[in-house]
Amino acid sequence: MKNSDPIEDLIALLSRLPGLGRRSARRAVLRMLSDPSRQMLPLADALRAAAEAVRPCEVCGNLDTFSPCRICSDSSRERGLVCVVEGVADLWALERAQAHRGLYHVLGGTLSALGGVGPEDLSIQPLLARVAEGGVEEVILALPATVDGATTTHYVMDRLAPLGVTVTRLAQGVPIGGALDVLDDGTLAAALRARR
Amino acid sequence: MKNSDPIEDLIALLSRLPGLGRRSARRAVLRMLSDPSRQMLPLADALRAAAEAVRPCEVCGNLDTFSPCRICSDSSRERGLVCVVEGVADLWALERAQAHRGLYHVLGGTLSALGGVGPEDLSIQPLLARVAEGGVEEVILALPATVDGATTTHYVMDRLAPLGVTVTRLAQGVPIGGALDVLDDGTLAAALRARR
Ligand SMILES: [Zn+2]
Ligand SMILES: [Zn+2]
Repeated sequence: MKNSDPIEDLIALLSRLPGLGRRSARRAVLRMLSDPSRQMLPLADALRAAAEAVRPCEVCGNLDTFSPCRICSDSSRERGLVCVVEGVADLWALERAQAHRGLYHVLGGTLSALGGVGPEDLSIQPLLARVAEGGVEEVILALPATVDGATTTHYVMDRLAPLGVTVTRLAQGVPIGGALDVLDDGTLAAALRARR
Repeated sequence: MKNSDPIEDLIALLSRLPGLGRRSARRAVLRMLSDPSRQMLPLADALRAAAEAVRPCEVCGNLDTFSPCRICSDSSRERGLVCVVEGVADLWALERAQAHRGLYHVLGGTLSALGGVGPEDLSIQPLLARVAEGGVEEVILALPATVDGATTTHYVMDRLAPLGVTVTRLAQGVPIGGALDVLDDGTLAAALRARR
């Protein structure tokens, strides 16, 4: 005896999400099935709405419902200050910390010899083009304090050097090996203020 | 600056699921947004399909796409043996353990003085009616080994007594305070075999 297919299908899909194992997925499905019209259909609609509306910003790589995104379109932000992050999760973490009043650039990863990630796999060329265009005074490299993060930081610094822009990095304060988006807001804000 | 509304809506809905906090919900949304057509739309469709197709079985209370459910409709199951469980999660756990070859009855909870759950809030009357109809030889009470579970077990035993059906309980082996659906299959199967 197996449970019905729509239930199994749903559990299988949910259990692929990061942070949800098969057991949690099963529990979530049972909870939702106790009130499908209020718990499942709104989630289905929200997934569809997000899938249809959200796109990467063509300027910075942030995810938003329009492009350029609302950060890039916000005339009150410091347009001369661009913070380079590994991924959108880090951008969101910096925004939650209200730690950065400038713009962003999402690399989409870090260089990784083992993972086979080279410069052409990251949004490095678009960053150089953005800086070469003028108007950027300082690039803050806010990459993770990992080996790959440090490699990427040095690579990007070398590529930016000829462009005559100020390049800074997050201060020590970011724990070694730590992902940005799991830090508390205060640590993030302090590391950003003490950048070097 | 806030993130866009469809993203925030989706994170808010996902973070209400058991086992997913706000941080995991955010991570799941970012993961899904990396490939919306393959990761979000199938999940939206699966949620909708399950919401529309799944209903409680009118006989036993299991959740399935038809009623009576596939367990109640399965002529190879021992129809004289009915296992009473607190919820559908427990029924699924017993099925995964392949521990029970009979039918089920889902109470929908346990009696709780503190929680204000009385006999009329549970599927006790339908259980008595099912037994009174004839054909049930043994009722196995597989309720949790908690205070409320024990109270419910005794209450249901008292109500079943006049009907002349054999009533058994899960053997010791179920840890005190333990929910059935977090036990390993072996423990569950052993407790069921050694029922008293
Ligand atoms: Zn942008
Ligand atoms: Zn049934």
